[in-house]
Amino acid sequence: MRTCILGASGLVGRAMLALVEDQPWLTEDPVLLTSARSAGQEIPFRGRTLTCRQVQPDSFDGLQLALFSAGGGTSRQWAPVARDAGCLVVDNSSAWRMDPASPLVVPEINGRLVGTGPGIIANPNCSTIQIVMAVAPLDAAFGVRECHVTTLQAVSGAGQAAVHELERQSRAYPAAEGSDIFPRPMAFNALPAIGQQTGDGSYEEESKVLNEMRRILDRGEDLQVTCTATRVPVMTGHSAAVRLVCDKPVDIEEAVRALKNFPGLIVTADPYDYHTAREAAGTNEVYVGRIRRDPGNQHGLLLWVVADNLRKGAAWNAVQIAATAAAAEGMDG
Amino acid sequence: MRTCILGASGLVGRAMLALVEDQPWLTEDPVLLTSARSAGQEIPFRGRTLTCRQVQPDSFDGLQLALFSAGGGTSRQWAPVARDAGCLVVDNSSAWRMDPASPLVVPEINGRLVGTGPGIIANPNCSTIQIVMAVAPLDAAFGVRECHVTTLQAVSGAGQAAVHELERQSRAYPAAEGSDIFPRPMAFNALPAIGQQTGDGSYEEESKVLNEMRRILDRGEDLQVTCTATRVPVMTGHSAAVRLVCDKPVDIEEAVRALKNFPGLIVTADPYDYHTAREAAGTNEVYVGRIRRDPGNQHGLLLWVVADNLRKGAAWNAVQIAATAAAAEGMDG
Repeated sequence: MRTCILGASGLVGRAMLALVEDQPWLTEDPVLLTSARSAGQEIPFRGRTLTCRQVQPDSFDGLQLALFSAGGGTSRQWAPVARDAGCLVVDNSSAWRMDPASPLVVPEINGRLVGTGPGIIANPNCSTIQIVMAVAPLDAAFGVRECHVTTLQAVSGAGQAAVHELERQSRAYPAAEGSDIFPRPMAFNALPAIGQQTGDGSYEEESKVLNEMRRILDRGEDLQVTCTATRVPVMTGHSAAVRLVCDKPVDIEEAVRALKNFPGLIVTADPYDYHTAREAAGTNEVYVGRIRRDPGNQHGLLLWVVADNLRKGAAWNAVQIAATAAAAEGMDG
Repeated sequence: MRTCILGASGLVGRAMLALVEDQPWLTEDPVLLTSARSAGQEIPFRGRTLTCRQVQPDSFDGLQLALFSAGGGTSRQWAPVARDAGCLVVDNSSAWRMDPASPLVVPEINGRLVGTGPGIIANPNCSTIQIVMAVAPLDAAFGVRECHVTTLQAVSGAGQAAVHELERQSRAYPAAEGSDIFPRPMAFNALPAIGQQTGDGSYEEESKVLNEMRRILDRGEDLQVTCTATRVPVMTGHSAAVRLVCDKPVDIEEAVRALKNFPGLIVTADPYDYHTAREAAGTNEVYVGRIRRDPGNQHGLLLWVVADNLRKGAAWNAVQIAATAAAAEGMDG
């Protein structure tokens, strides 16, 4: 598939480019698109160098696949242009995630919704992806009725400038500093506020976990979800402490089996074992550990879920969607 | 009260010494006791300098109050010696917390259990103190039936060496490093493992929150508690995301009122408002913010609870217990 990446110079755009290097359906060099500000940047690809170009109305002509990793505003502007030029758009912003015409896809769960030909497919929120990857097989096994989450999220979710600020402020500690990016100083701190205020007492990230998890699992208000989303001084890798309440009593061995049989998960069955953000960084899998039953509720289950927010939480999930479309087109190698 | 501090050279011991400077019942200089290794260290007190002495069998003779902040083994060895010498021992280790003869006290909640004269009073676990401070008034208002917690805990809870290691590793990042103190590298990471393994799938810190919260609130298995305790790269200040389920439907205004009327809390009523670990560090209060109702459960309530783990989580709570005893003895200035 002739492909472009919009937002190619950002953290997720660069991760997308690195990940498509190995994709057999990508036979031609992708077109790298950015804003005017980043046009001209050079990025390595398959041993050569590609140059970023400013996105234009004719940028998408003749292409079949557009991987978007730009802000919601940029996506709302350009995704319809790309679609109307004949592209399948896989969009990493939140712009299309609640649009009934755009499937919200985690390929291991609902990859069947990926069609061929022009359209817009939404890539879910980073935290939602890793949590729902752990919840889906348990929902199939026990029927998940409630999902209560506390996330511990990395700063790379807020972009390159956030990573640089945290590096700089960590070295300068204990010098008192504000933040150009976060609502409070981020170094050696934990902030329970990610995204805008939604009006119902939640921050955006918390609402996304609720709304997107229901949509991906094809559930409604019968699935209760609460989330407290926090930012912690981690560069890459989101962690989530998850408590589930199920319709049926939870047998731990059966839960471990269900998780181990699900693609894309690395499962540690010992309740004391786990992976951390730094171990997950740079990998495509979702790690599920600290699996234990709620001591006060036979229907309850506790988990620790970790993944690279730039990979499975963003770029890798988008590339998987593209690969699913390529396979549906009979183009996978 | 003639007073000693055992473990005076540690982070909590130094905080205790700084906090008793202002206590009117402390008219004589406290005796500073340490292990042989730290004996001879000099620590400022009320404009002068006190010298640490090695703890000995006769160290407690003639004293009335012993503030202990040493490990559990040291406490098991010396607390009975101090008590038998006539001291009221306020112990910050976990050694006596489940001992029926030793009250487990958060003064705002069950200060009535502080007696006069010789005995051992246990100071609760740092995370437990701040969580139960928020739960107690809500329990009185609505009857708390379930308490589900994710903690984000500072490294100073693991002592001075942990703080120094995190400072050093944060500067050295991204150089790969292990840890002399934690089970995985702590800089720019989040570890869901605090304390020893208890055998039921929990780590010690998680079991402490369950067992100590029940004891402080004088509840049994009718209070369901789950906890995932995590260590994050924060120097001082524990944060906790708390979800409660109550017997009665929760009215948010009533919840805020109950919290505001409780001593020792600083409450932000706006559901978007909160304090962070860095703001709490160096203060004695417990901060309760992000107060909002569970969107799927009228009986549910979400909170963000922050406190200085060395102050209210340790030294300040111990000094409050001592002050309660002094008041009971009619010695408060």
